[in-house]
Amino acid sequence: MLLPAQIIQKKRDGHALTEEEIRFFIDGFTSGELPEYQMSALAMAVCFRGMNFDETMWLTRAMVESGEVVQWRKSPATSLKTDSGALGQHALPFYADKHSTGGIGDKTSLIIAPLVAACGVKVPMISGRGLGPTGGTLDKLESIAGFNVNLPLKEFQCVTEKIGCCMIGQTAEIAPADKKLYALRDVTATVSCLPLIVASIMSKKLAENVDGLVLDVKWGSGAFMRTREASAELARAMVEVGKRYGKKVCALQTDMNQPLGQKIGNALEVRECIEIMSGTGNANVAPVKHETTASQRLAPPKSNDLLEVTLALSAEMLLMAGVAKNVAAAREMLQKKMTGGQALEKFGEMIEAQGGDRSVCEDLSRLPVAKHTRPIPAPKTGDVRSIECDQIGYAVIALGGGRKVASDKVDFGVGFEQPKKIGDPVKSGEPLMIMHYNDDGSAAEAERMVQRAYHISEEAVTDRPQLIVQKIE
Amino acid sequence: MLLPAQIIQKKRDGHALTEEEIRFFIDGFTSGELPEYQMSALAMAVCFRGMNFDETMWLTRAMVESGEVVQWRKSPATSLKTDSGALGQHALPFYADKHSTGGIGDKTSLIIAPLVAACGVKVPMISGRGLGPTGGTLDKLESIAGFNVNLPLKEFQCVTEKIGCCMIGQTAEIAPADKKLYALRDVTATVSCLPLIVASIMSKKLAENVDGLVLDVKWGSGAFMRTREASAELARAMVEVGKRYGKKVCALQTDMNQPLGQKIGNALEVRECIEIMSGTGNANVAPVKHETTASQRLAPPKSNDLLEVTLALSAEMLLMAGVAKNVAAAREMLQKKMTGGQALEKFGEMIEAQGGDRSVCEDLSRLPVAKHTRPIPAPKTGDVRSIECDQIGYAVIALGGGRKVASDKVDFGVGFEQPKKIGDPVKSGEPLMIMHYNDDGSAAEAERMVQRAYHISEEAVTDRPQLIVQKIE
Repeated sequence: MLLPAQIIQKKRDGHALTEEEIRFFIDGFTSGELPEYQMSALAMAVCFRGMNFDETMWLTRAMVESGEVVQWRKSPATSLKTDSGALGQHALPFYADKHSTGGIGDKTSLIIAPLVAACGVKVPMISGRGLGPTGGTLDKLESIAGFNVNLPLKEFQCVTEKIGCCMIGQTAEIAPADKKLYALRDVTATVSCLPLIVASIMSKKLAENVDGLVLDVKWGSGAFMRTREASAELARAMVEVGKRYGKKVCALQTDMNQPLGQKIGNALEVRECIEIMSGTGNANVAPVKHETTASQRLAPPKSNDLLEVTLALSAEMLLMAGVAKNVAAAREMLQKKMTGGQALEKFGEMIEAQGGDRSVCEDLSRLPVAKHTRPIPAPKTGDVRSIECDQIGYAVIALGGGRKVASDKVDFGVGFEQPKKIGDPVKSGEPLMIMHYNDDGSAAEAERMVQRAYHISEEAVTDRPQLIVQKIE
Repeated sequence: MLLPAQIIQKKRDGHALTEEEIRFFIDGFTSGELPEYQMSALAMAVCFRGMNFDETMWLTRAMVESGEVVQWRKSPATSLKTDSGALGQHALPFYADKHSTGGIGDKTSLIIAPLVAACGVKVPMISGRGLGPTGGTLDKLESIAGFNVNLPLKEFQCVTEKIGCCMIGQTAEIAPADKKLYALRDVTATVSCLPLIVASIMSKKLAENVDGLVLDVKWGSGAFMRTREASAELARAMVEVGKRYGKKVCALQTDMNQPLGQKIGNALEVRECIEIMSGTGNANVAPVKHETTASQRLAPPKSNDLLEVTLALSAEMLLMAGVAKNVAAAREMLQKKMTGGQALEKFGEMIEAQGGDRSVCEDLSRLPVAKHTRPIPAPKTGDVRSIECDQIGYAVIALGGGRKVASDKVDFGVGFEQPKKIGDPVKSGEPLMIMHYNDDGSAAEAERMVQRAYHISEEAVTDRPQLIVQKIE
């Protein structure tokens, strides 16, 4: 066995590590026997030298096995039927999850979990908090009064098995090596390192022990991966690790050069999801009513990008589970569960099972709202050419809707809605978005950030970003 | 001010850091406010991205200023006269030091300090322990009974000012940032990183606050820098930093592809130095007498490489101090101080001032000796083509003459003498070296290491390594 410094040196010099070396490092780091300064030095060396698929796989496995792997009940499931009513190819319950690399206004998890569960697939989701400019599923859920994202693993299992879906935060039992390593990477500039990202994401998902995993790997100005190439590389690496682990796994590469959907901010995003599941937000997204000014009367959105991404990801989960034969059949099934109210009903059941106020599903006024709204005027006339989408995320944080430091309390009501999207025409003084805020000072700062984030061109913009770039499997 | 993680990221992404950023990091690390895991991540990023001269200079300065800078008494010195007897260009005492990057059998410090002091230059030397395969000046000095290398800084100043030279280890006051960083680099595979090496060496020497510094930068199989190019690059960087600090500084690049001199091992090396300073080791190096066997009757060495390097380095110090007009004059002055006995007398004074048994200077039998000696037979007949010189150093450690772990006690008497050098003819069974040892088991291991380290060629070897490659200033 090599000494830790020799293992670091081996990676520093560009050599591949063995499974034993990686295991030794991760086990020692998790137990505290190996000091953090050796782990951070190795992480930095990995940032420069990378890891091959074998090493990435071994790292992921060492992280999975640093904690517990959920053991699901695998008794025959009568509820699992195909869209034609016959039993699917799986007689046992199928467990599937969706993971997104994160974005601005990315709230698909809140719809996908109940929607796919309503189709008979079990959806156990372990989610995260806001990270950098991106929002966090847990923060969004906590804008529902009483919602408990800190269920113990046993209860997480019970709720998933009983209701069909459950959404919690990473527990102490799930991949503790990842939890500890992530905290270290965050303060040592070793976050944006492909093999470490892959192992971090996949270790949590593999510890969930789902049968199928659909990845939403975003690219663009609001995504962790700024280029299509980097995002595709990440998607391929995650799919590869998942497959080597014997899981059904695929990735959709999607756009994050502009906010997804019509609302950004915790309670606002929950509202948008409920509107979509209740059908009201499907064709036409209703703004939150506070004060009505002329500038708030916006044209309806060109397309419902949020719904489109949600359906595409959900359809892949149904295909994996074998409850739909093809994408068309899957989408039809999903649409029916939305319009029939079963998706929203399932969302309500999950909220109730996790201690939350399920009446929000019928009464959106029970969600937190900010005291004030006002439009953010466009500084010039033209077409929206591009958006520094991460700045929109940082503007939400500036309003108090995210954390600057881990101990910050989140203001759930603040955020934005009805953002102008790329290709939209805008006139000087007309709203780029509607801002929901509680504090005048932070609103002024957020307004400036949003205005700077929008690049408006006097030339016509005819290209809109491709929402779903490709499927990687 | 950037956050520590942002500073790490800046370097990771290949950008130059500012003086403030470097200072913030080093100050925080030294005080303990900045955790070691951030320092090690930055060190690893520096290994990959390097530092420009400005950054290296700022790093060095931050490390110097993490502790005390010695304040020398700068009253006119009557002792400082040129070789012609007139007062030199400096009416004030001139403080000079020599630093070597370390090698096998490299013992020049033990001669240079008293020799140059005997010429009227003040020589305060802060030295190190054995590092890797290389021996340490402090360990060698401690083979003299009673010699105290742990003088407080105040006493170090007094002895230097009174005697003209003093040799101690790094104190807590001298560049504490370096002490802490070096320990961290040692366990995070960030030792072999040029700017960090430069800052480590130069910070200690600049904290010594000498007026002139001569660097012995070695290259080859027994040196830290294995290639001439890497060693020249290191020399240039150190000279540059020294000059920017306003010091007189130059470097001699010297050979370390074979042991320097005729003896390797702590007490053996002290013996060799005393022999040289007493004139007996000058033309002809006397072996330590224990048991005389036929194979110990060796031909005298082709040249005295140790004396040559010692004189070359010392001459540069005299030139800097202005006590000699040119190299020829300096060498003549140095030779006179050796043959006249003043160098050895000064060595004795220093030993006495530092609590040691100065009678070793007259009676070499007062030095520790190993119980046994035996020749290490050459495994084949031919010319010595090359030597894996670091393996000779490791063989000394195997005999107990160095440390495997920091807490090991050093066996001062063990080592080797009369090594065959590159180009020397050797017959199968004739000695490659004479081994001094106390333990049969370790002797067998050391013998194998030495035999494997020698590469003997059946073809004639006519090229010997160039002892002094170049002067860099």
